[in-house]
Amino acid sequence: MFVIEKKLEELGITLPAPLGPSPLAEHVVARQSGELLFIGGVGPIKNNMPSITGRLVRDMKHEDGYAAARQSALNLLSVIKNELGDLDRVAEFVRLVGYVASDDDFYDQHMILNGASHLLNEVFGEKGSHVCTAVGVNVLPFNVPVILDAVVRVTPQKEVTA
Amino acid sequence: MFVIEKKLEELGITLPAPLGPSPLAEHVVARQSGELLFIGGVGPIKNNMPSITGRLVRDMKHEDGYAAARQSALNLLSVIKNELGDLDRVAEFVRLVGYVASDDDFYDQHMILNGASHLLNEVFGEKGSHVCTAVGVNVLPFNVPVILDAVVRVTPQKEVTA
Amino acid sequence: MFVIEKKLEELGITLPAPLGPSPLAEHVVARQSGELLFIGGVGPIKNNMPSITGRLVRDMKHEDGYAAARQSALNLLSVIKNELGDLDRVAEFVRLVGYVASDDDFYDQHMILNGASHLLNEVFGEKGSHVCTAVGVNVLPFNVPVILDAVVRVTPQKEVTA
Repeated sequence: MFVIEKKLEELGITLPAPLGPSPLAEHVVARQSGELLFIGGVGPIKNNMPSITGRLVRDMKHEDGYAAARQSALNLLSVIKNELGDLDRVAEFVRLVGYVASDDDFYDQHMILNGASHLLNEVFGEKGSHVCTAVGVNVLPFNVPVILDAVVRVTPQKEVTA
Repeated sequence: MFVIEKKLEELGITLPAPLGPSPLAEHVVARQSGELLFIGGVGPIKNNMPSITGRLVRDMKHEDGYAAARQSALNLLSVIKNELGDLDRVAEFVRLVGYVASDDDFYDQHMILNGASHLLNEVFGEKGSHVCTAVGVNVLPFNVPVILDAVVRVTPQKEVTA
Repeated sequence: MFVIEKKLEELGITLPAPLGPSPLAEHVVARQSGELLFIGGVGPIKNNMPSITGRLVRDMKHEDGYAAARQSALNLLSVIKNELGDLDRVAEFVRLVGYVASDDDFYDQHMILNGASHLLNEVFGEKGSHVCTAVGVNVLPFNVPVILDAVVRVTPQKEVTA
């Protein structure tokens, strides 16, 4: 029971408080449809502020971008936990799209997003395996360097309680 | 019966003619798979022309971008109606990704997309609640300021006729 | 049997070797969830190298971008074949998102992506019909001009063996 929570503890990871949508936005951060849970617009927000702002690599080093992707993935897990009540209900991660604010000559978006992918693999093992599309963009909301959009397959509630 | 049509009438909203794909494009604008309806590439096209062109905020004010997002969402509803025959077959909106053509120092993509989100909430209430990922990009097809990509869950036809 | 393979042969198309994720990336290129197969981050890679690099139209002509989109779609088919064992298991294409590395004043992303859409229609006929969202971005991983993200509906294995 609570396999994933135990794993997080082993790894010394404390999840942040669940991220809501930005105060003025008229949408939600997670929505389940059938077995699929869609989570959108998750960035490296920490205590209601971007943990870092700007573009790769004009404004930050690779490792800062990687850390921003990891922070975004921690927020993603927190949103999922808040939505499902329990991270063990994640049947598998399916897909990430990661947008990386990039200079015109920065070509390593996929390496930055490894900060998110690595966390999912670390915490969920084979269930964390996912498709990832890395995209460079000139700018993102709140001037964050990374935004994640995710699709997760969820175990139906009855299977869990059985 | 025709709950949504009545709501549109109450709100004084007349849907535009359904948008097709751009004349030379080799794709469709909507495709249903199982219970999910995918709609892609919907922008602020009006009478076969962009209702506005350019980037936020070099070429237009916030309120023009917001209006462009709303126009895109009206087109989205028109496409869905054309596809399903009846907007009451929308079980729920699931996800929007909104791309906003943005200057490098424009960080309010999520506020622009509220123009779309607000319409969905206004017309569909709780069923209109959706995840939204706001992304800034340097340029979009036809030089439009906003493009929407949506996933909607559809009520199976048998349930409706029952 | 092997309808699609025969079609490829008729069209004189030989699929490339299946693309893996970039060597250092911590994700996979395809993931099935229920009936949906998600494929992400597929670009015009050929023999482990981008077949072309740069942006439309600063670095290449329209026809080179179109060819890059077609090469990306060939890689997409190769990934799908590798994943499913047999392209006849594709029930239908559902959705493409195509990112096109673009100058700030390039507005024909949808025409570039026709290179991918045309191939899907050519090979799969009605089953190849799909929604396509064309997005311009300032830069993509490995400096490729096109990246595709796809959702495909898959025929359950039992139906195929029946």
